[in-house]
Amino acid sequence: MPVISKKGLKMPESPIRKLVPYAENAKKNGVHVFHLNIGQPDIKTPQVALDAVKNNSIETLSYARSEGSEEYRTKLSKYYQKNEINVSEKDLIITTGGSEALLFTIGSITDPDDEIIIPEPFYANYNGFSTASGVKVVPVNSKFEDNFALPKIEEFEKLITEKTKAILICNPGNPTGYLYSKEEIEKLKKIVLKHDLFLIADEVYREFTYDGLKHTSVLSIEGLENNAIVIDSVSKRYSMCGARIGCIVSKNEEFIKTAIKFAQARLSPPTYALIASEAALDTPQSYFDEVIEEYVERRNTLTQELEKIEGVSVAKPKGAFYCVVQLPVKDTDHFAQWILEKFNSNNQTIMVAPASGFYSTEGEGKNQVRIAYVLNKKDLIRSVEILKEALETYPN
Amino acid sequence: MPVISKKGLKMPESPIRKLVPYAENAKKNGVHVFHLNIGQPDIKTPQVALDAVKNNSIETLSYARSEGSEEYRTKLSKYYQKNEINVSEKDLIITTGGSEALLFTIGSITDPDDEIIIPEPFYANYNGFSTASGVKVVPVNSKFEDNFALPKIEEFEKLITEKTKAILICNPGNPTGYLYSKEEIEKLKKIVLKHDLFLIADEVYREFTYDGLKHTSVLSIEGLENNAIVIDSVSKRYSMCGARIGCIVSKNEEFIKTAIKFAQARLSPPTYALIASEAALDTPQSYFDEVIEEYVERRNTLTQELEKIEGVSVAKPKGAFYCVVQLPVKDTDHFAQWILEKFNSNNQTIMVAPASGFYSTEGEGKNQVRIAYVLNKKDLIRSVEILKEALETYPN
Repeated sequence: MPVISKKGLKMPESPIRKLVPYAENAKKNGVHVFHLNIGQPDIKTPQVALDAVKNNSIETLSYARSEGSEEYRTKLSKYYQKNEINVSEKDLIITTGGSEALLFTIGSITDPDDEIIIPEPFYANYNGFSTASGVKVVPVNSKFEDNFALPKIEEFEKLITEKTKAILICNPGNPTGYLYSKEEIEKLKKIVLKHDLFLIADEVYREFTYDGLKHTSVLSIEGLENNAIVIDSVSKRYSMCGARIGCIVSKNEEFIKTAIKFAQARLSPPTYALIASEAALDTPQSYFDEVIEEYVERRNTLTQELEKIEGVSVAKPKGAFYCVVQLPVKDTDHFAQWILEKFNSNNQTIMVAPASGFYSTEGEGKNQVRIAYVLNKKDLIRSVEILKEALETYPN
Repeated sequence: MPVISKKGLKMPESPIRKLVPYAENAKKNGVHVFHLNIGQPDIKTPQVALDAVKNNSIETLSYARSEGSEEYRTKLSKYYQKNEINVSEKDLIITTGGSEALLFTIGSITDPDDEIIIPEPFYANYNGFSTASGVKVVPVNSKFEDNFALPKIEEFEKLITEKTKAILICNPGNPTGYLYSKEEIEKLKKIVLKHDLFLIADEVYREFTYDGLKHTSVLSIEGLENNAIVIDSVSKRYSMCGARIGCIVSKNEEFIKTAIKFAQARLSPPTYALIASEAALDTPQSYFDEVIEEYVERRNTLTQELEKIEGVSVAKPKGAFYCVVQLPVKDTDHFAQWILEKFNSNNQTIMVAPASGFYSTEGEGKNQVRIAYVLNKKDLIRSVEILKEALETYPN
């Protein structure tokens, strides 16, 4: 019998995936499950994007250009310019989701056994893309007590070896909701310039910043032109996760030239989704204003309700739509399964993401969960009630 | 300045891509270019697929399930059963095009420096996916004189090492148009069982077989259950290359379990394209009958016209919509560029794919081109006229 690759065996299973059968079973037993576990917003996709697809006049659904059409890239570059990111269509490669943007980026800048430093906790799929490319993720620990601010730069210095090729950040952060300040990005600038590293910033939540705070793109920092790579996506911005359109942005010409070869090998991003994504650029500002207002209210509601529970604390998020929550339990992997398997409150229960899956260091985050505030306020309030009741019942 | 990876530098540029600027320049100069170089058919996408997307009622464009919905996989498994491929929905993973199916497959069964044996000439992007995974393509030469039939099994035997993980075939073949017989597949069965290798078959042209010949899937061969992996796609079958929906099919449970982890890391195939692809399964047989009839006529027209030219010969295709053509020139890379750059006939010219890009062995195929018969008969006849005139004018 032929054998699976070492790489294949090492590929991590999605940390949430393990819980899916328990959630499905709960539903079969008539229990309603509130999904606080996923980054799939309930927000509607802008009508202008939906309409563009409904009104398409395609007769032969053809390949799109590998790096995306010049029209779309030009229009998209204007979006970046409006966000103080001074790029042109030549600096962009349209990808199949932020996922593919990451895969092409890692492929272009690393060889097997190279290393990428990532502040943990981090988006779990960074592990998957790194494993798929044979690359080692080197975590640098950020602290719940600091709301997951940037670790001290000395901590990064300690981890840099001959094999380090890049530092990867997510800003605003999934799962932390932390928004890096301009000062923090400037600190990263110094270290990547000193060691000739790439600085990859996953900025897919760019629009989702709260409390009047402003997002700082790595591409808005002078002197980082050759080092900065932005990973982007339409998924969260326009609540169109199912489109699977993303983007690589960089002023480093050699990097872009290389990543385009990866894009050519897979031929084309999906054509219908390109239509939706190009049209989505015409989404009126009022859409974002409403969405941000909604998320701020949800965040406030969620964190206020959570902090009423004894023993529960929240790393206050300044962006994105996640927060990491500390619970008075020893093992949230067990707790999250238990709520689905053994607990319900009036035939309702909740699904949360155990935080251990967002840490690379074994044993970290065992008393934390990630909660995505992608449900409406009423459901969020009810979810926290269920959590409170569950914590009281749970045989810790 | 940070550096590009060795892998990135090695990524091959698409062999056709190099010619694109010359084609664009010709068009700017008012010259019409007949594109015989690409596998983008002019055939219309089935109306049932186009309508399903136009009539969608999506309000929030959400993620699809990583491996594709159970509904779609179940419906798709019935398509396979109709084609004498006895699989169930559990044996399928829906991917973003055949491209991603290949990438997940290679990732699941190889580690860096492993080897995959592929009869050459082969689809050029196999090189790209292999390079991206750090895998070495080991070519086994098939001969123009044999219409690119399967090389002798001894030739495969000679190339098998400790690092060989799979044999990869494309059936019917791109660029060859060759259709492997059941006997040839049986020969491959023996060798993969003997050496515990995977047998990957890219069967995206399954429907396109001519002269009453029947396609043999590796999954229809008894005893290959643990070894056979089929790569599939809706791109050519329904002339919907821009959908980017493909599929991995295998009865090897451990392999499918592994490949699903790659699928989870990238979250989801594109949702709109899934709607089109699921609906496309209801395409009436009359659609295929007409398409096949059209391709047969095109193939006959093209090969008849080509063989009238002195010094030109064609490896007669039995499937797909490509053929490899030998020209009386020394270097078709130069010739293909020259036709675009220096030649036109009444302001018309042609673009062909130099065959060297489909060979892995340096120096092979230098007098061959691949011609895709994806244009209507009138345009094909005119294209061959232009080729004839160009050959007469070309300063060899």
